[in-house]
Amino acid sequence: MQTYRLWISTPDQPGLIYKISKSLLDEGFNIEENHEFVDKEGNLFLMRTEIVGEGAADILEQKLTTVLPEDSTIEVIPARKKNIVVLGTKEAHCLGDILIQHDSGELTADIQAVISNHQVLGELVQRFELPFHHVTHEGCTRQEHEAQVMDIIDSFSPDLIVLAKYMRVLTPAFVERYAGKILNIHHSFLPAFVGANPYKQAHQRGVKIIGATAHVVSDDLDEGPIIAQNVVHVDHSYTWQAMRQAGRHVEKVVLTKALELLLEDRVFVFGNKTVVF
Amino acid sequence: MQTYRLWISTPDQPGLIYKISKSLLDEGFNIEENHEFVDKEGNLFLMRTEIVGEGAADILEQKLTTVLPEDSTIEVIPARKKNIVVLGTKEAHCLGDILIQHDSGELTADIQAVISNHQVLGELVQRFELPFHHVTHEGCTRQEHEAQVMDIIDSFSPDLIVLAKYMRVLTPAFVERYAGKILNIHHSFLPAFVGANPYKQAHQRGVKIIGATAHVVSDDLDEGPIIAQNVVHVDHSYTWQAMRQAGRHVEKVVLTKALELLLEDRVFVFGNKTVVF
Amino acid sequence: MQTYRLWISTPDQPGLIYKISKSLLDEGFNIEENHEFVDKEGNLFLMRTEIVGEGAADILEQKLTTVLPEDSTIEVIPARKKNIVVLGTKEAHCLGDILIQHDSGELTADIQAVISNHQVLGELVQRFELPFHHVTHEGCTRQEHEAQVMDIIDSFSPDLIVLAKYMRVLTPAFVERYAGKILNIHHSFLPAFVGANPYKQAHQRGVKIIGATAHVVSDDLDEGPIIAQNVVHVDHSYTWQAMRQAGRHVEKVVLTKALELLLEDRVFVFGNKTVVF
Amino acid sequence: MQTYRLWISTPDQPGLIYKISKSLLDEGFNIEENHEFVDKEGNLFLMRTEIVGEGAADILEQKLTTVLPEDSTIEVIPARKKNIVVLGTKEAHCLGDILIQHDSGELTADIQAVISNHQVLGELVQRFELPFHHVTHEGCTRQEHEAQVMDIIDSFSPDLIVLAKYMRVLTPAFVERYAGKILNIHHSFLPAFVGANPYKQAHQRGVKIIGATAHVVSDDLDEGPIIAQNVVHVDHSYTWQAMRQAGRHVEKVVLTKALELLLEDRVFVFGNKTVVF
Repeated sequence: MQTYRLWISTPDQPGLIYKISKSLLDEGFNIEENHEFVDKEGNLFLMRTEIVGEGAADILEQKLTTVLPEDSTIEVIPARKKNIVVLGTKEAHCLGDILIQHDSGELTADIQAVISNHQVLGELVQRFELPFHHVTHEGCTRQEHEAQVMDIIDSFSPDLIVLAKYMRVLTPAFVERYAGKILNIHHSFLPAFVGANPYKQAHQRGVKIIGATAHVVSDDLDEGPIIAQNVVHVDHSYTWQAMRQAGRHVEKVVLTKALELLLEDRVFVFGNKTVVF
Repeated sequence: MQTYRLWISTPDQPGLIYKISKSLLDEGFNIEENHEFVDKEGNLFLMRTEIVGEGAADILEQKLTTVLPEDSTIEVIPARKKNIVVLGTKEAHCLGDILIQHDSGELTADIQAVISNHQVLGELVQRFELPFHHVTHEGCTRQEHEAQVMDIIDSFSPDLIVLAKYMRVLTPAFVERYAGKILNIHHSFLPAFVGANPYKQAHQRGVKIIGATAHVVSDDLDEGPIIAQNVVHVDHSYTWQAMRQAGRHVEKVVLTKALELLLEDRVFVFGNKTVVF
Repeated sequence: MQTYRLWISTPDQPGLIYKISKSLLDEGFNIEENHEFVDKEGNLFLMRTEIVGEGAADILEQKLTTVLPEDSTIEVIPARKKNIVVLGTKEAHCLGDILIQHDSGELTADIQAVISNHQVLGELVQRFELPFHHVTHEGCTRQEHEAQVMDIIDSFSPDLIVLAKYMRVLTPAFVERYAGKILNIHHSFLPAFVGANPYKQAHQRGVKIIGATAHVVSDDLDEGPIIAQNVVHVDHSYTWQAMRQAGRHVEKVVLTKALELLLEDRVFVFGNKTVVF
Repeated sequence: MQTYRLWISTPDQPGLIYKISKSLLDEGFNIEENHEFVDKEGNLFLMRTEIVGEGAADILEQKLTTVLPEDSTIEVIPARKKNIVVLGTKEAHCLGDILIQHDSGELTADIQAVISNHQVLGELVQRFELPFHHVTHEGCTRQEHEAQVMDIIDSFSPDLIVLAKYMRVLTPAFVERYAGKILNIHHSFLPAFVGANPYKQAHQRGVKIIGATAHVVSDDLDEGPIIAQNVVHVDHSYTWQAMRQAGRHVEKVVLTKALELLLEDRVFVFGNKTVVF
């Protein structure tokens, strides 16, 4: 008996659930959990089904291909521990949270390596006896730096790349190479602030809320389909450093939440947004 | 074309979704929105499907009865504005929130009447030209009082009874008569406090959070399957009156949220808990 | 015995609290509640003190003027019910929340009038037997429209002007005339959206949080010193209309919270931010 | 120049702030941050002042003793990194969060040792090269076990003892020995659940919110003056294990928040509650 997560995305039309559930029954799969959503604007039917059975995944996929519309996307993903590579820069809070959960067996993922453009996180990673790769960005172009990072990533073929406060802008080539596989976390404010040290700006603006957004990386580092968001209340008594510290707590929790969702194949990206089942 | 909310609760077994979706297709209904949940402890399959079609609801219900296990519960509920009766005592915040939303057309419900054991809310209700019934509990037994209240309720045959800070303990007879149809809101604290003036107790205990719980009334007034909960942060500078005021804001929002869910038939009660789709 | 809220803003220097507390003692005032904050960047000392006494406010103010640095701001505000004028457009949720609280005596303010550029809110206001002024913006320039609105406002000399979803851009002249006295609420998103129908944009962007910001109006309608903010979680199943409805609940609670703070003279504006004591 | 946190608790009476601020000025201390609160029920004046100066702390304390009422409590606490001992059992999430912050220098505390009644956390602690003491509770009475734990604690004379999911009931003798110095975190539910596996009970009850409470330990392990609380929303789709996991995220954040407050001497306990400045 094997568990799979079946993701179907197809133009909406009558009878889809009937056709899909019949195929599953015919091929010997039982439905353990099922979520559907119809995006009416895009006339898109989305379905995530957790199925258990002795049947073969490729035969199910073929079967579904024959009964569903031509331009459907069908993925039959075996439920297994995923491999991740974590990228960081200097801040330890997000990386540390992942390391602790990994160490205590709460994270259903194997951390293959941590890569950083600074040396400072190396000691922490080595405490957990995990491979640490320091790839400095100094003395090389953005392309040269990324080439080295990609070489290391590719040597592991990870399922996911987690940017745990990785403070480098990614090139379109990098984003495209790992399309849909890069998870990022960034601070979020109401209103938003661009430019250097957003916490200083937020402090100067007197915000009463500090947020964090975890998202799949598309083009721009801080844009891309949102998976999870949360906030924490602050007030005038917070210095900008205290705001940053408060932000760190919410960042690590939101990143971990989003990572858990991705590890269970619960996130589907369409357009610039997500369905999270 | 008519929209229905189909609720199915049945012992879990393979092929249920196939059978149900086939019946819907056969009877000419299209699925607009679909949610399922399997309660593994109780081996219970729960499904809420928003269906649209020209077919007859009773024929669909018969059809489903023949294909589903014997001890299934099948409800085909037409999507329509529901009728509600609101019960209050003295506090206006929850009632007022409902009245405002009703008045501005944001609430998909008709308020048939407001009943109170005090006179004080009468003026507010009459501002909105709605029937107000003052049924004093003074000088009569609990049973006698409730008999009068039930007479008024029954004259309207409401879909739902909303206890908007109705501060009377209900008899089992009352609860049973309107089983599953009574929505209540009450303040909630961590830890919980019993007895008179819980806000004073919460203040004395120095709680940092004040919550509200909206639930379907079963036996005990403040127990019963939970639909929605929320909290607000407080601190030592709050007097118990300020805590109560903060509590009122969260109470009205949580009650309204739960009411919206009930009006869209999104709440299913099983055991002492709910599934909210 | 009279209660005053004393606000002092002065360049920070040693001995301020000593000088102030001595003056209060000398003039026969007792401190009931006291908050201080030093904005280190601006070297600004801020203090809000709730004082009770038989002494004369003007004599206290004179006394403080003599002991404090020259460029100090000293305000001795008697604790009394404030007068407010509410401006709205079409949406009833914020106005309605204020009306209900006013009606039940929970708001320590007198609503002198409601002004709207549309007729639609008139019926609601009249239910509460309050003056409603419809000032259409059609067929006149922004300046002409505002001139009419200001005439009405000025006929009441309110302490505060509450923009309860007033959907008109204000001219600098209007903002300046009522500087520091205008409270506004607006929806807030992560990320922010500009242009028409932000809820549609937020929906398209797949945000997982919807927020509201209450602020003092300075130049731009949606900028200005923030008093209070809050958020509510949403997900992909929300249509943009459902997001707007969720947003309304958080907007009304945040506006009311900010209004309560202003009515108790708990907000001090400096630079583009606030201290909320 | 040395920074101190001055805590004063005294019966409320006119002129206190004047007397205190005069003493500070006389002894050469400048006020950097000041908070006051009057508990009207207990007629108690509480003040926390961050003072900077060249003066001697003991002379200031003597001075204040002469000017304040006899039954005042005066503490002049030098601002310095505190020493903490952490107690755990099997769960790593709270301990891990503290270790990470300690390791990255975000925690203004030195961890002197970690003590556990199980061996399982030892490996994690040793990763950070910190002393780990395994004191099994098996084969000995509660008193004998605690005696061993207290011996270890006393060998370090810590400022604070952090119970990071330490699952042992403490004896009154233990609590009294470290009165006011023990910080605990526990899960909190609405409603509350007693007995074994509260997460299973909460799941069965269908709660929509899971909370965590950090508090100073007084008599009962899960009671005592509350410092910080927070919650996370859950729904029917959460298994009890998923609820526990969601609870862990909120527990670690709330414990860390409370610890930060204690490390900055921002918590004052009176009666069974706290003032948090």
